[in-house]
Amino acid sequence: MSADDSENTQQVYARAGFGAAVRRGHRPAVVVVDLTRGFTEPGFDTGADLSYVVADTGALVEAAHAVGAPVVFTAIAYSDAEVDSGAIVWLQKATGMASLREGGDAAALDPRLPRGPRDPLLVKKGASAFAGTHLAAMLSAWQVDTVIVCGATTSGCVRASVVDAVQSGFPVLVPRECVGDRAQAPHDAALFDLQAKYADVVQLTEVLDYLASVETGPAGPATQLAEPALAVAQQAVIR
Amino acid sequence: MSADDSENTQQVYARAGFGAAVRRGHRPAVVVVDLTRGFTEPGFDTGADLSYVVADTGALVEAAHAVGAPVVFTAIAYSDAEVDSGAIVWLQKATGMASLREGGDAAALDPRLPRGPRDPLLVKKGASAFAGTHLAAMLSAWQVDTVIVCGATTSGCVRASVVDAVQSGFPVLVPRECVGDRAQAPHDAALFDLQAKYADVVQLTEVLDYLASVETGPAGPATQLAEPALAVAQQAVIR
Amino acid sequence: MSADDSENTQQVYARAGFGAAVRRGHRPAVVVVDLTRGFTEPGFDTGADLSYVVADTGALVEAAHAVGAPVVFTAIAYSDAEVDSGAIVWLQKATGMASLREGGDAAALDPRLPRGPRDPLLVKKGASAFAGTHLAAMLSAWQVDTVIVCGATTSGCVRASVVDAVQSGFPVLVPRECVGDRAQAPHDAALFDLQAKYADVVQLTEVLDYLASVETGPAGPATQLAEPALAVAQQAVIR
Amino acid sequence: MSADDSENTQQVYARAGFGAAVRRGHRPAVVVVDLTRGFTEPGFDTGADLSYVVADTGALVEAAHAVGAPVVFTAIAYSDAEVDSGAIVWLQKATGMASLREGGDAAALDPRLPRGPRDPLLVKKGASAFAGTHLAAMLSAWQVDTVIVCGATTSGCVRASVVDAVQSGFPVLVPRECVGDRAQAPHDAALFDLQAKYADVVQLTEVLDYLASVETGPAGPATQLAEPALAVAQQAVIR
Repeated sequence: MSADDSENTQQVYARAGFGAAVRRGHRPAVVVVDLTRGFTEPGFDTGADLSYVVADTGALVEAAHAVGAPVVFTAIAYSDAEVDSGAIVWLQKATGMASLREGGDAAALDPRLPRGPRDPLLVKKGASAFAGTHLAAMLSAWQVDTVIVCGATTSGCVRASVVDAVQSGFPVLVPRECVGDRAQAPHDAALFDLQAKYADVVQLTEVLDYLASVETGPAGPATQLAEPALAVAQQAVIR
Repeated sequence: MSADDSENTQQVYARAGFGAAVRRGHRPAVVVVDLTRGFTEPGFDTGADLSYVVADTGALVEAAHAVGAPVVFTAIAYSDAEVDSGAIVWLQKATGMASLREGGDAAALDPRLPRGPRDPLLVKKGASAFAGTHLAAMLSAWQVDTVIVCGATTSGCVRASVVDAVQSGFPVLVPRECVGDRAQAPHDAALFDLQAKYADVVQLTEVLDYLASVETGPAGPATQLAEPALAVAQQAVIR
Repeated sequence: MSADDSENTQQVYARAGFGAAVRRGHRPAVVVVDLTRGFTEPGFDTGADLSYVVADTGALVEAAHAVGAPVVFTAIAYSDAEVDSGAIVWLQKATGMASLREGGDAAALDPRLPRGPRDPLLVKKGASAFAGTHLAAMLSAWQVDTVIVCGATTSGCVRASVVDAVQSGFPVLVPRECVGDRAQAPHDAALFDLQAKYADVVQLTEVLDYLASVETGPAGPATQLAEPALAVAQQAVIR
Repeated sequence: MSADDSENTQQVYARAGFGAAVRRGHRPAVVVVDLTRGFTEPGFDTGADLSYVVADTGALVEAAHAVGAPVVFTAIAYSDAEVDSGAIVWLQKATGMASLREGGDAAALDPRLPRGPRDPLLVKKGASAFAGTHLAAMLSAWQVDTVIVCGATTSGCVRASVVDAVQSGFPVLVPRECVGDRAQAPHDAALFDLQAKYADVVQLTEVLDYLASVETGPAGPATQLAEPALAVAQQAVIR
């Protein structure tokens, strides 16, 4: 967008009330979107060299592990049955995604990422990490109140995941070094929209400082009521 | 179920690992399902006299207000357009639900309930309070970690809401005095299943003690990063 | 429920407008819920001998294959990371479900079922086949208008799946021979509720006749617009 | 994006398999996103003059009515309780959206639109028309197989709705004359991404021709099984 355009857009967006900062909570989680070989390696038709994104995301994941913040990885992977039966409408438009098959190299997590033993790997079928997955339920189970989104591609699955995170009730941070795309213009446009309307697009160093400042770990001891017996439930009355 | 049946079922369920107590967290919310006049007053075809349920739920709602725990009410209500266009498949089976119209008496919240100014009222179209609503997102926004479900009917919308609450990542308590139904057997069967598989079915007094024990109120002050500027986002690069 | 109870319940439910028959459409699909070894074999703590259910469901699946109607299988399976990280709240209550691990025997589809090469197998984490899965999206992709639900257990995952199917916009048939449970009373109560409020609970022979009466197969040739070029999109203007 | 950039992006996207045409089905529906006064009138801080979008969308809606294709309108509207209780995380970022209140002028449908008596109006809380609404269920209830998305803003709610429509199993068409935004660059970038990855972005005339070519109307007569009696369900046995 030209400088004039940009200036006018900023005025229009300021008037419309966009771009405020979101709440940082006490229990962040990191969601790493689709940093699988089919996206991070240029040898795959659907990929690009995202080595820098992988490296910076790896540093972020290790920082999360250090403070006990939950980390989730996602991967797109389709079964032959899903593809052959026409179960996935997205593949009509994004035909190349059909190369991401369960058990195949393109669907494998980039081996440079430091996935921990307690980091779930969610298989997804659409752009958003939340669409048709139990990601929102997992975040609630962990009592998460802030979501940090990394991965690829900025204009595709990252963006869709950020929008869904907000719609699922979670403030979102996007560390700019930890997201990447195949092409510059869509990447830039996506970060502009995300920062204006959905998330705080920030430097990785700020997110690392934030992670270091929170005490997460397992949820503290919760109040326990006397354990209700099955027998009690059987005496239920209508009132 | 006969005594013999019941004993055998208990053994089978114990072996299958059902009926354990769920975690009580630090930020409970109360969800009051469908205590609208069409369900709580016997003068409506879809209703029964649920005065006792309304009274006990009212006490629970006031206890939640006292500690600042969020409260949400739900109501089933259809527009003429929804009914006339065939948009709601459930009405094929449960034809009587079509009498619950937007703006009508049957869809109005029971006036005996002490709804507060910050208690949202969600309009829903199906049995579950979570189906086609933003309830899960609201609970996450409030950083809720425990859901207390009340309302009507036990075997219908309450049960469906409890199952969805668990599936959305929230441990659930059901105070038995605060749920009611049109008929005894479905009510009893629902409470049996809920206690075995999905929630802790407990006495209202236990839930009141639990509410009194938590400090909720607004979430504490959260860490704020330096506010990112729109200008920064516009300098985004692919990395 | 006693005879008196039952008679009164029928009157109350008739007045409330329950129990009507649902629409049978032109493109049915079969959803087979959780007929994995952990549920169908009595050697597993979570299982019972559901050989008859497996056999009758197998006949139904073959009938669906014969007319080209889509078939989906579901299985509950958890990763170690999900269990160890506390990602699944349901496991607090239904502790035995944690024995259903990815790649384990309990999570394997019952080998007596005639799964076809185009029948997707969905892994789920909750009771409902729709919760946290892309089942609804697949049914829409296939232009399905009627869902036939089979499997186990009647009072648990079958019931939750039926409720969600209706809430997702699909009329539901439940062939009674094709659902089973660990215990009689919850099974009976679930079928009663399902038939009254959510689905048509029918004989398997009726469902087989219905399947034979529909012409499904792949969707007919659809109208194609001139293929829009990327170049056109790039000329987009605000209007 | 510069000419060079654009050319390179096209090559990269072609290799990745984007931009194919989607299936046009036999039962389209029109979803009109957020053409409320707060978006279509420049007098509101959140608005712009979208008179042309309103006019062209009106023509499309009338064409849909003429062939009996379903039409749905959406509006963003918040209750005071939702805003005051902090139930909507999106309002932290997009603070201006809080001006869209239930019953207020900004949340009212643009009166120039020809809404019909059977066109539901969905109130939504997030960007996507599918998030926290029963839109997907309604589309399935109507046996819809193709979704035409119109409205505002292209880079915000329209885009999010298109992505969710695809993820919900529906091929999507976007008539370019029927979508609009506050600013040129985000509008252009959104249409580029949508055409490449999610939908066919086409001329309105093509969509009008398509609508005229389909026979929709109410679903044809469906097969009816013998109506199952409640009494049968009560005889349910485990097998």
